[in-house]
Amino acid sequence: MIDACICTIGDEILIGQVVDTNSSRLALALEEAGIHVNRMLSIGDDATQIEETLRTELSRNTLVITTGGLGPTKDDITKAVLARVSGSEGYVTHPGQLEMVHRILRSRGLDVLPNNLAQAQVPDKAEVIVNQLGTAPIMVFRNLAGDATLYALPGVPHEAVGAIPAIVADIRAHQPLESILHRNIMVYGIAESALSQKIAPWEDALPRDMHLAYLPNTLTGIRLRLSVYGGDPEQNSARMEEQLGLLKPLLGSLLYAEEDSTLEKAVGTLLKEHGKTLSVAESCTGGVIAHLITSVPGSSAYFLGSVTSYAISVKESVLGVPARVIAENGVVSSPVAAAMAEGVRSLTGSDFAVSTTGLAGPAGDEHNPVGTVWIGVSGPLGTRTFTYCYKNDRKRNIERFAASALNVLREYLLEALLGR
Amino acid sequence: MIDACICTIGDEILIGQVVDTNSSRLALALEEAGIHVNRMLSIGDDATQIEETLRTELSRNTLVITTGGLGPTKDDITKAVLARVSGSEGYVTHPGQLEMVHRILRSRGLDVLPNNLAQAQVPDKAEVIVNQLGTAPIMVFRNLAGDATLYALPGVPHEAVGAIPAIVADIRAHQPLESILHRNIMVYGIAESALSQKIAPWEDALPRDMHLAYLPNTLTGIRLRLSVYGGDPEQNSARMEEQLGLLKPLLGSLLYAEEDSTLEKAVGTLLKEHGKTLSVAESCTGGVIAHLITSVPGSSAYFLGSVTSYAISVKESVLGVPARVIAENGVVSSPVAAAMAEGVRSLTGSDFAVSTTGLAGPAGDEHNPVGTVWIGVSGPLGTRTFTYCYKNDRKRNIERFAASALNVLREYLLEALLGR
Repeated sequence: MIDACICTIGDEILIGQVVDTNSSRLALALEEAGIHVNRMLSIGDDATQIEETLRTELSRNTLVITTGGLGPTKDDITKAVLARVSGSEGYVTHPGQLEMVHRILRSRGLDVLPNNLAQAQVPDKAEVIVNQLGTAPIMVFRNLAGDATLYALPGVPHEAVGAIPAIVADIRAHQPLESILHRNIMVYGIAESALSQKIAPWEDALPRDMHLAYLPNTLTGIRLRLSVYGGDPEQNSARMEEQLGLLKPLLGSLLYAEEDSTLEKAVGTLLKEHGKTLSVAESCTGGVIAHLITSVPGSSAYFLGSVTSYAISVKESVLGVPARVIAENGVVSSPVAAAMAEGVRSLTGSDFAVSTTGLAGPAGDEHNPVGTVWIGVSGPLGTRTFTYCYKNDRKRNIERFAASALNVLREYLLEALLGR
Repeated sequence: MIDACICTIGDEILIGQVVDTNSSRLALALEEAGIHVNRMLSIGDDATQIEETLRTELSRNTLVITTGGLGPTKDDITKAVLARVSGSEGYVTHPGQLEMVHRILRSRGLDVLPNNLAQAQVPDKAEVIVNQLGTAPIMVFRNLAGDATLYALPGVPHEAVGAIPAIVADIRAHQPLESILHRNIMVYGIAESALSQKIAPWEDALPRDMHLAYLPNTLTGIRLRLSVYGGDPEQNSARMEEQLGLLKPLLGSLLYAEEDSTLEKAVGTLLKEHGKTLSVAESCTGGVIAHLITSVPGSSAYFLGSVTSYAISVKESVLGVPARVIAENGVVSSPVAAAMAEGVRSLTGSDFAVSTTGLAGPAGDEHNPVGTVWIGVSGPLGTRTFTYCYKNDRKRNIERFAASALNVLREYLLEALLGR
C-alpha cells in the first residue's frame, strides 16, 4: 500500500476556530482507494513551518496532500513555499483557472481585483487541475524528494471535498494501486457488540482476503463495509456478492440499505416507490425528525408536514390528544404517543405518521427516568407504540430518539407496503 | 507564550471513520489560556510511530497533549509507550481511578473485568488526574526531554472535553502563564468584511496590547473576541470595559449577547424574562428552527410548538393560509410568510410567531432563484415580512434561513418587549 500524509494549513485550525473536516473526508476517500493514511497534520500560516513540514513528509510518504493556505490573502505564503519546494523558477498563469476566476466573480456580481487574478498564477513546476467550485487552483507537483507527489487543495470544505474525485483519479493514473472493492450494508437497531456476536460465524468464515469494518454513527446506525484488496475485480465482485448473500438472512430487517445511506433516505424511498405520504408529530425531538426527512432532496414528494407539540396545550388543541389521556397516563406515555401519531395523520391526511414524546434531559419526570421516549406509528395497519431508554446527554438522546423513530417507521412501512 | 502540540492517537481517525473534534476544543481552551498551539497531529495505534512522534514533539514543545489510545482494548500500546518515554519502571494502580472504574461499571450494570481493572494502572512516573466521566485516567508526565510536560487524555470526546478545565488549571499551576482576559460580543446580521469596515476606526484605535478576533459561524453570526495578554487583570478588565463601551453604540441591535451565546438562547432569554410564548411555522427550514429553539434546556417555558407545512395542503388546512393567497403570489412570497406566521400564532395561541417559506435548493421555481427565503414575524406589533437570498448549497441555505429567521424574531422582540 502507498503511504500518504494529509496536511492542513491555516491558523484558524490551530486556534480552534474551525474544526478540520477536510482531513477526515480525504482520509475516507484515500482509504477506500487503497491508500494508507500514515498521519494527519495541522500547521499554521508560517512559511518556515510549512516548508520544514512539507520537506519532512515528502521524504517519508509517497503522497502528501495539503488543504488550505491558498486564499486570496494568504496566497503568497503557501504558494511561495510550494515554488521553493518544487524547484520552480517563476509563476505562470493557468488559462483554465483564470477563466474560472472571472466566471465565479461575475456570477457573484463582484469586480475582479488583482489579488483575484493572482489566484490563477501557479509555480511553473505545478500541473493544474481546474477547481470548478472556487478561485484557487488545485496544484499537483510530481517527483519531489525522489518520487513523492504533492497535491495542494483549497481549504474551503466544499471545494476540498469537490476536488477528491479528481485527486483520486490522478493518483490512480500515476501510481500502481491495487484494485479494491467495497460493498456497504447499512444496519440499524442493534448494538455494535451484539451485531458482532450475531454475525461472528459468518465473519470468521470470510475468505482471508476479505475485510469487514464496523462504522457506527448515532443517526444512521452501523455501516458494515466489506472490502477486498487486489485480485481480479470481476471475480472478487462475484465472491463478495456470494458472501453478502449469506449475510443478509442473518440480518433480516436490521438491514436497511445495500449502499451507504441513511434511515431518512430509506424511509423516503419506500414512500416514494409506493406513492404514499408521511406526517410527523414531535415533542422531545423538537423538529429533528422533520429536519432529517426534509434534508433529503425531493422529500416534498412524500412529506406533507409535521407538528412540534412542545406544550401540552398544542398536543391537545392542534393534535387533538384528549386532556384525559394526558392526565391519566402522563405526557410521556404510550397512549399519548399513539394519540399524537393519529392526530397528525388525521390533521394532514397523510397515509402514515410517526410521533415522539420523551425526556431528552437534563432531567426526568415523576414517572420516567431521563432518556425515556415513547414512539407512535400510525397507518393502514393501525397504531403501534414502542419505548426506549437511552443514557446519553440531551443532544445525543435527541438524536437517538429521532433515529429510533425513523427506524420504527421503516419497519412499519416494510410490513404495510411489502408485507414483510 | 508557551508552545504546545496536540496529538490524537487512533486508527479510526486516519481511516476517516471519525472526525477529530477534540483537537479543536483543546486548541480553543489553550489559546484562551494564552498557550500557542504550534501543530496538531493524528497518528495511528502503532507503538513505533507513537514513540517517535512523542519524542520529537516533546523535544520542541513545552506541552504535548495526547487524546485517545487509552481504551480497555488498546490500553497497552499507548500506555507502554508512555512508560518507556517517561522512564517508568513499572505500573501502579491509582486508587481514585480504580474507585471510578468500579462506580462507572456498576452504574451501567456491568461486571468489572480484568481489562477494566487495568484501566486504573498507570506507569509509575505518571501523576493522575481522576477522570470523573470515564474509566481511563488522565495522566501527567513532567520533565520529559528536559522540561516538557505531557498530558494523556482519553479519546472519547465528552471525556476529553471534560478534562480540559483540570488540564488548564494544572498548566497554570506549573507554568508561568501570562494573565489573559477575553470578552466576547455576539453579532448577527452583517458580513465579516462589512463589520470590519464599520468598526475599523474603533479597532484601529485599540490600545496596542488589546487584540480583536473575528470568529464567524453560519448559525450564530460573528463572535468578536477582545483579548488582553499580560498586565494587571483588574486594571485590564476596566480598560476592556471602557473599549466595549465605545464599541456597543457602533453595533446597535446587531449585538445580541455580551458573552459566547447563540441566537436561540438570546430569543429564549427575552421571552422568558417577559413571560411570553412563541410558536413557529416552517416550510423550507423543515424543522431546524424548532430544533434550535428546543436545543436550549428550559425552552418548554416559552416554546409552545411548531408546524412544518411542507405540503401546500398543510399550509392551507393546518395553518389556514388561504388558497387564493398562494395562487396569486406563489408559495414563496411575502403574503404566504405573513399568513403562516399569523396562522401558527392563532393555532397555538402564542404571543409571538415566526415563519419561513423559501427555496433551499437544489432548484429554484418559476418566480424565485434558489436561495430565496421569505420570513414572517407576527406579534402585538402586527405582522411583518422580510426576504433574503443566499447562494449556498441546500444544507447551508437551510442553516442561513433558520438563523435569519431567529434574528428577525429577535429584532421584533427587542422592539415589542423593550421598545428598542
